[in-house]
Amino acid sequence: MRLRIDLGYDGTDFRGWATQPGLRTVQEEFEGALATVLRAESRLPVVVAGRTDAGVHARSQVLHVDVDESAVAASAGRSGHDPVANLTRRLNGILPPDVRVHRTRVAPEGFDARFSAVWRRYAYRIADRPELVDPLTRRTVLAWAHPVDEGLMNEAAATLLGRQDFATFCKRREGATTIRTLLDLHWARRPDTGVLEGTIRADAFCHNMVRALVGCLIAIGDGRRPVSWAHEVMVAGVKHPAVQVLHGRGLVLEEVAYPDDAELAARAEATRKVRTLD
Amino acid sequence: MRLRIDLGYDGTDFRGWATQPGLRTVQEEFEGALATVLRAESRLPVVVAGRTDAGVHARSQVLHVDVDESAVAASAGRSGHDPVANLTRRLNGILPPDVRVHRTRVAPEGFDARFSAVWRRYAYRIADRPELVDPLTRRTVLAWAHPVDEGLMNEAAATLLGRQDFATFCKRREGATTIRTLLDLHWARRPDTGVLEGTIRADAFCHNMVRALVGCLIAIGDGRRPVSWAHEVMVAGVKHPAVQVLHGRGLVLEEVAYPDDAELAARAEATRKVRTLD
Repeated sequence: MRLRIDLGYDGTDFRGWATQPGLRTVQEEFEGALATVLRAESRLPVVVAGRTDAGVHARSQVLHVDVDESAVAASAGRSGHDPVANLTRRLNGILPPDVRVHRTRVAPEGFDARFSAVWRRYAYRIADRPELVDPLTRRTVLAWAHPVDEGLMNEAAATLLGRQDFATFCKRREGATTIRTLLDLHWARRPDTGVLEGTIRADAFCHNMVRALVGCLIAIGDGRRPVSWAHEVMVAGVKHPAVQVLHGRGLVLEEVAYPDDAELAARAEATRKVRTLD
Repeated sequence: MRLRIDLGYDGTDFRGWATQPGLRTVQEEFEGALATVLRAESRLPVVVAGRTDAGVHARSQVLHVDVDESAVAASAGRSGHDPVANLTRRLNGILPPDVRVHRTRVAPEGFDARFSAVWRRYAYRIADRPELVDPLTRRTVLAWAHPVDEGLMNEAAATLLGRQDFATFCKRREGATTIRTLLDLHWARRPDTGVLEGTIRADAFCHNMVRALVGCLIAIGDGRRPVSWAHEVMVAGVKHPAVQVLHGRGLVLEEVAYPDDAELAARAEATRKVRTLD
């Protein structure tokens, strides 16, 4: 039985999503909790929609995991609760407070958390004046020492939209394409707090891509580079040394979108073909 | 020279605002930083608008402090910066990340951070379903295990408004009145997150008052008590044992309002007379 689990985490004290020996990662915490709840002898490998880097947060991360139906039934005991829905409560009882499961359900036919997704939406938040730096949001908002002009950033962002090769913004991985479709990239101040909020949405992102895009745009916003620089960097085709990969602190995976249930399997198959050479 | 300083803090790791020997408090941290910046031989006592309890946060706390003008001038050195405005930067360079100064200015004539204030506004935030519990806001939102009906809470809240004796919601202090004017008390769900947010605004609050008010209303919201109970508790005149003083985690001092400059001194004098027997 395949489960779809929606969860969120504060990435501050994690070395990212993916398991790394000896380091605290969200995957490690989650798989450990799941094995405990299901009394599994070994860890059940989970597949996640967005493999976030060190320090990056998720408000709505999505994963799938294949589990033994009888183990799920046994986990509810004689409580009379729906065994699948009950996993949310059981997992939250074990997980540390910086990881919370929002919902657990049986995945629809053909669902793959990674390959069925049609887009991922991230937000990057910046406080660019001392009076905007709020200690209550310091774990998720980057404090920037120079004022940033969001109008210039939006002009530059517009030149990056669409289906393009984002190699210059990506950490290269052997055998993986760096062509992505950037669907949305814009900046606006929150009317209530004045914090600058970037929305970054694409079919998928390669490693470092969001933070490198933001690092490029902030150099334009704070006046170090002209608006034209973003497009110049993009077409250069090689990683540009002046593009800073910004800190993970300001970055949150906000939403992952999937097609209608009937499209899930076809979407997964199509994506898998395009994105990997497996 | 009297300074007005606006600041915010994450109360999670503090034992409240007011200095207590051997405990980490915001006042202690702030006065220490100020003494360092001004090279003062002893601490300069500050007066704050809202003396928040352990675990309670502030987005916009206001304080005043009387300082030696020449020490302020000396603190800017030869930087050419305005010495008063420059204090913001200097203080933030020393303060821990859970306290941030937003603004420093010369206080207008007659300004008293505590007694000139016309009202204080607090917010209390509650996540009453597992899917609303967001690890990214876990330091400022209380997770509540039972669903809460904000309609019932609003009905009950309406019976508490106005100028009344809030003795039943206060920790008694010798020689201090417990009569306050509750100007606003209502609950609404945030459209974006679903989190239940209470707004509590009064001329001033006595010790424990906000958290006891919220503790009373949440017992109505989650069905343990009828709507009429809030008013019954209020008129009882003695502290009600069933009223829970809710955890500080969900509580934020959001705003302190002052009258026009011309009214500051008169307001301070009037408040001082009403509120204390000094």
